[in-house]
Amino acid sequence: MDIKAPYLLFLGEAADALAAKTSIGVAQWRPEKCLGQVRLPGCKADAGVPDMDVREAARKGAKTMIVGVVNRGGVISPAWSKVLLDALAAGLDLASGLHNRLSDVPEIAAAAKKHGRNLFDVRHPDREFPIATGMRRSGKRVLTVGTDCSIGKMYTSLALEKALKALGVKATFRATGQTGILIAGSGWSIDAIVSDFVAGAVETLSPAGPADHWDVIEGQGSLFHPSYAGVTLALIHGAQADALVMCHEPGRPHMRGLPHYKLPRIEDCIAVNVAHARLTNPKAKCIGVSLNTSKMTPKAAERALKSLADRLGLPVEDPSRTGVAKLAKKLARI
Amino acid sequence: MDIKAPYLLFLGEAADALAAKTSIGVAQWRPEKCLGQVRLPGCKADAGVPDMDVREAARKGAKTMIVGVVNRGGVISPAWSKVLLDALAAGLDLASGLHNRLSDVPEIAAAAKKHGRNLFDVRHPDREFPIATGMRRSGKRVLTVGTDCSIGKMYTSLALEKALKALGVKATFRATGQTGILIAGSGWSIDAIVSDFVAGAVETLSPAGPADHWDVIEGQGSLFHPSYAGVTLALIHGAQADALVMCHEPGRPHMRGLPHYKLPRIEDCIAVNVAHARLTNPKAKCIGVSLNTSKMTPKAAERALKSLADRLGLPVEDPSRTGVAKLAKKLARI
Repeated sequence: MDIKAPYLLFLGEAADALAAKTSIGVAQWRPEKCLGQVRLPGCKADAGVPDMDVREAARKGAKTMIVGVVNRGGVISPAWSKVLLDALAAGLDLASGLHNRLSDVPEIAAAAKKHGRNLFDVRHPDREFPIATGMRRSGKRVLTVGTDCSIGKMYTSLALEKALKALGVKATFRATGQTGILIAGSGWSIDAIVSDFVAGAVETLSPAGPADHWDVIEGQGSLFHPSYAGVTLALIHGAQADALVMCHEPGRPHMRGLPHYKLPRIEDCIAVNVAHARLTNPKAKCIGVSLNTSKMTPKAAERALKSLADRLGLPVEDPSRTGVAKLAKKLARI
Repeated sequence: MDIKAPYLLFLGEAADALAAKTSIGVAQWRPEKCLGQVRLPGCKADAGVPDMDVREAARKGAKTMIVGVVNRGGVISPAWSKVLLDALAAGLDLASGLHNRLSDVPEIAAAAKKHGRNLFDVRHPDREFPIATGMRRSGKRVLTVGTDCSIGKMYTSLALEKALKALGVKATFRATGQTGILIAGSGWSIDAIVSDFVAGAVETLSPAGPADHWDVIEGQGSLFHPSYAGVTLALIHGAQADALVMCHEPGRPHMRGLPHYKLPRIEDCIAVNVAHARLTNPKAKCIGVSLNTSKMTPKAAERALKSLADRLGLPVEDPSRTGVAKLAKKLARI
């Protein structure tokens, strides 16, 4: 899967920034790839790039329209359909993070075929993967892990890639979920892969590389989440990470979606993740914590970062508040 | 998936018992379901039931022919094809544990449709599963886990079901792999399920039951196998087992298929499995070990069983040598 830039971002009639978080994320992390955005009447979100229609975008060189918005009830509305068909007619590929596949909508599939364009349904990996071998691969790897789902692993991974590059260190973000894939232009949604092949898919995603190059692998789920821990463990084994960064949000009342499950203690969560990571990379260690303090006041956030750092004896940063320069520097010394 | 008995077992031209192990396993564990067997010229295996052709089996009431043999190179040979088509014409369903699907062979699919018969490709779950909720379910559950793959988890589970029933305890074997499914007549190959849904599939497989009823859930893989540990962890979380039985084979030189990975210490393996099982069932404990001593002399086996039992302070039995009465009695007291 290799999604061609430059991109035109489709935000539909997103009621708020959350509904268009994928398009906004692409614009935030890959601004150099984003020519413009298409917003339908009623759209309240803004990716911060020029509004334009598909023909203008095509004239300016856009190669792919990113459908980076949540649709209601899994149905492609007629208003969307018109823009998607126009984009294909104008010569753009479509890439979507939706649950339902573009390729399952007959008129879209037919138009793509007619115009010779590609449809990328990034939630649905369209290839086969090998069974993991556990063989060591050259190059360095850092994996984000977490006390819970949806806690900042993708954001942290992208921030680490950026901070490593700022230090002059070669680094590549490796996407394992749909938003990350649309940002990176490649990757696989590992939670949509048949379970036997998940670790093998991660080995494929992060192949052998130069000794001084870092793959920054996007984490998924949590070893302490009863619904998804199997995905997480396969990812940990496939990643063979040299370094783990633990992602956490203080004050979460319970595991995401499961009111009857509390979050683990971060110390326990680190110990269990490191123990499993050492199966495929005996040198694996946790180099620090990414703390999501978005719901705190600046003063409370500062206190939380410092007190956790003191407690763990590890650097603790919030990518959106402090950046991750300390974590990146620690990686660069490995 | 609900495969109707009585069965006719198809052994093809199996060169040895291993090639026909699925048919032989069905005859061993569900003799009451097996009317007969079909063997082609050159077959060296024997399921120990009367040889008959498909028409005779149909006359005697057979409902399903079990394709319980490994085929060469994934191709259905013309010799097989004739028997499979004859079985469909005689009014039998077909159930197969092969990697390649019967339903993908055009002439077989067409014949099934024509005769109104079902094709069960048990390696390929044909339904959707929910995301696991981690909600506690009534009834009791025991899960077999292991230091490695292919170490005796299915065999142990079937032996536990039998031993529990012999004690007058209600018990149901719950199959998670293709041979187990053909023996049980139902179940799902969890390693073929999309990773996000594996724990949910196990919750579905072992639903709430009577308080005094045991589900004996067939384990898969090992938390210490770099290729498959994610499948195992999802299974552990979905199972919510009250009791774990650890399966082990002394003297294995390395993890199955991976010469560069050693087996874990059994004490460590028990501790890690129990710790993960407690996420969804805080009362989970390991009640004993099933030791595969098939490659040992009787005397060496006896010594191995006793010395491991002394070391762990747990009952250690070999289902095929000693039976599992001690393990079953311990379960019955929970």
